[in-house]
Amino acid sequence: MESDRYKRGLDKLREIDREQGERVVASLSDIAPDFATYLIEFPFGDVYSRPGLDLKSRELATVAALTAMANAAPQLKVHIHGAMNVGASRQEILEVIIPMAVYAGGPTALNGLFAARDVFQRTRSDLVFLVVIRLVQKASSASH
Amino acid sequence: MESDRYKRGLDKLREIDREQGERVVASLSDIAPDFATYLIEFPFGDVYSRPGLDLKSRELATVAALTAMANAAPQLKVHIHGAMNVGASRQEILEVIIPMAVYAGGPTALNGLFAARDVFQRTRSDLVFLVVIRLVQKASSASH
Amino acid sequence: MESDRYKRGLDKLREIDREQGERVVASLSDIAPDFATYLIEFPFGDVYSRPGLDLKSRELATVAALTAMANAAPQLKVHIHGAMNVGASRQEILEVIIPMAVYAGGPTALNGLFAARDVFQRTRSDLVFLVVIRLVQKASSASH
Amino acid sequence: MESDRYKRGLDKLREIDREQGERVVASLSDIAPDFATYLIEFPFGDVYSRPGLDLKSRELATVAALTAMANAAPQLKVHIHGAMNVGASRQEILEVIIPMAVYAGGPTALNGLFAARDVFQRTRSDLVFLVVIRLVQKASSASH
Amino acid sequence: MESDRYKRGLDKLREIDREQGERVVASLSDIAPDFATYLIEFPFGDVYSRPGLDLKSRELATVAALTAMANAAPQLKVHIHGAMNVGASRQEILEVIIPMAVYAGGPTALNGLFAARDVFQRTRSDLVFLVVIRLVQKASSASH
Amino acid sequence: MESDRYKRGLDKLREIDREQGERVVASLSDIAPDFATYLIEFPFGDVYSRPGLDLKSRELATVAALTAMANAAPQLKVHIHGAMNVGASRQEILEVIIPMAVYAGGPTALNGLFAARDVFQRTRSDLVFLVVIRLVQKASSASH
Repeated sequence: MESDRYKRGLDKLREIDREQGERVVASLSDIAPDFATYLIEFPFGDVYSRPGLDLKSRELATVAALTAMANAAPQLKVHIHGAMNVGASRQEILEVIIPMAVYAGGPTALNGLFAARDVFQRTRSDLVFLVVIRLVQKASSASH
Repeated sequence: MESDRYKRGLDKLREIDREQGERVVASLSDIAPDFATYLIEFPFGDVYSRPGLDLKSRELATVAALTAMANAAPQLKVHIHGAMNVGASRQEILEVIIPMAVYAGGPTALNGLFAARDVFQRTRSDLVFLVVIRLVQKASSASH
Repeated sequence: MESDRYKRGLDKLREIDREQGERVVASLSDIAPDFATYLIEFPFGDVYSRPGLDLKSRELATVAALTAMANAAPQLKVHIHGAMNVGASRQEILEVIIPMAVYAGGPTALNGLFAARDVFQRTRSDLVFLVVIRLVQKASSASH
Repeated sequence: MESDRYKRGLDKLREIDREQGERVVASLSDIAPDFATYLIEFPFGDVYSRPGLDLKSRELATVAALTAMANAAPQLKVHIHGAMNVGASRQEILEVIIPMAVYAGGPTALNGLFAARDVFQRTRSDLVFLVVIRLVQKASSASH
Repeated sequence: MESDRYKRGLDKLREIDREQGERVVASLSDIAPDFATYLIEFPFGDVYSRPGLDLKSRELATVAALTAMANAAPQLKVHIHGAMNVGASRQEILEVIIPMAVYAGGPTALNGLFAARDVFQRTRSDLVFLVVIRLVQKASSASH
Repeated sequence: MESDRYKRGLDKLREIDREQGERVVASLSDIAPDFATYLIEFPFGDVYSRPGLDLKSRELATVAALTAMANAAPQLKVHIHGAMNVGASRQEILEVIIPMAVYAGGPTALNGLFAARDVFQRTRSDLVFLVVIRLVQKASSASH
């Protein structure tokens, strides 16, 4: 039986990044499915669902922290992507990564910028891919 | 001769936290005055003066990062105070510290909360002190 | 209304360290009572209540990790105390701190040992204090 | 001439993980053979050979610490493998990695789980490989 | 318009490692060219240009620190290469990496040594490549 | 029986900082005397006794690394003092701490500078104290 926290967490996670969220949950299904439940319940069902700060500000703070900690590159990329999904511009993302040179050092900020570039490029190709798909679908439906 | 970056940095630092900024600069005057200059020029003259993100969002991201890094308690307190000076509410500050339990662990978030409480209490006593001073001044000027 | 997780967590926390647990919860009551609830629900209600590993082994692993991370001295002391409460001997505690010299460096292990000494000494004085109290009570009740 | 510490250390390292140990020593032979000697003498000859805690508990504490530090992925995998070699079950390994979400954050525990999955899968394929080899040998010797 | 700090920084960066420096600057041109400017101005124009310590000692201290921090492998390699460019021998580089086993733990020092081996091997192949190129050029010019 | 490594380590430790070294060993005598032995044997008997780099360069690299790691303030102070004992000037010590702003962030370098100031001030008072003592002794012996 799914708890209310789980449902609320899953909704919140989908709001931030449906695809990445589902990928992480799936990746844990064979080894530690309980952990996937925790990941949805506590961070997303409890913490991200709190009132008092909008989702975009939450994600920007997370991108800053993960850049500064410099020990979780895959999760940093997930949250750069998530920040964009909830309304952060590329410029705003860069503006929380660059100051980490001040707080966590130049190499750390540099690696944060490279993570952002990876996400931006992937997002751009996804976009191109999506546009092509839609054009093909349109052409295909038009030809019928 | 002061550089433009220095002047711009000093203005920005004063906008964030005049008193704390001057205290740090003074504390370095005997051992490494050059370092005080760097601290004003690079973080405040270069980075914090960038367009593209408002000061409050910058300070909230910094509070999140310093909480998560958990290695610079005095500077975390300075920036909690700075965040309040540029418009962040206590609630907003708590809302970037609490999620660090998710990204950097419970003890780290807990110690961030204790830093916030210290700053909040100090700020509250400062306020009471200020109000008392003003009442005394008022009474004093009224009696003349 | 208290959740089941909260009740289970509070029981588990009391099993590990009743006094310290209550102190942490109380210390958060004015600033972030929600966070105290999370601290009881997720770590103690969810994680520590899992089957598959006894409490003593869990606490020893936690002491090793907090020593190695070297960023949360107060919480390290809480868990050294907790480990003793759930059956770890002083020797066993030292045997998970000392190897951190190998994994996290000598200074880190040294500071872990100093934390352990603080806890051991406090525990010893508590014990002496308790024995004295009981002798006094005995003498007192004997004299009636 | 080999010191007693070296001999004792090599025995201990072989008890934990013969193959991985020899691989690390070999990998250092061209660049810093002295360092390989230190790695055997201090961690394994001095520390792991101490009485007062069994090898399995030592390895579980090490897996917890390396997960939490999140800065040495290859060595974390070596010690997950080592823990299994000295008697830790997969479940017990997961039970020291999962709580690191509490102490070092979710991303860190997640990356620890992925490291464990890599080791478990490799171990499983090794096992399948071994079984196949033995069946082939058996069949081969039977056919003679 | 280039600042004096930029020119001085670029000169210093080229003195340490012309090729790597230009590669980093180029890699930032599309995403954050301002950050490339900061990287040249503050670290190289301000800090590395300070009197009071020779470049080789500066680079050796940097290699020690980046090894110990264990969170920026690509930049560690850049500075191992840079240390060699400003006069540090391979032996001297190993002598600042190996002691990090004492201060930051064995895995961290081990990963530092592997980074050094990568740089040494690359440098050696570059050298062989260079010698071959020159021999070919010589032979080629001799044949005319 | 003392090992050769122990004797060699104790000599080296005394060369770097007799008083601090003896204080650390004494502080461990009640809780983990074995650990004091390791601290003398491995870091000082093995690592610091290696040829290939002078003691002053070793200590400067250590000061840089401990500043950057930002998790062992007492040991940082010991090594700032040790660096001075083996010939590093105050200027040279500042010149390995200040660049850590580049690699580990401003707060970290700032806290390193404050540690240096503590040591410099203490050393200065020790010196004044010593001079006074000698003048008193001289006056005292002159008066006889």
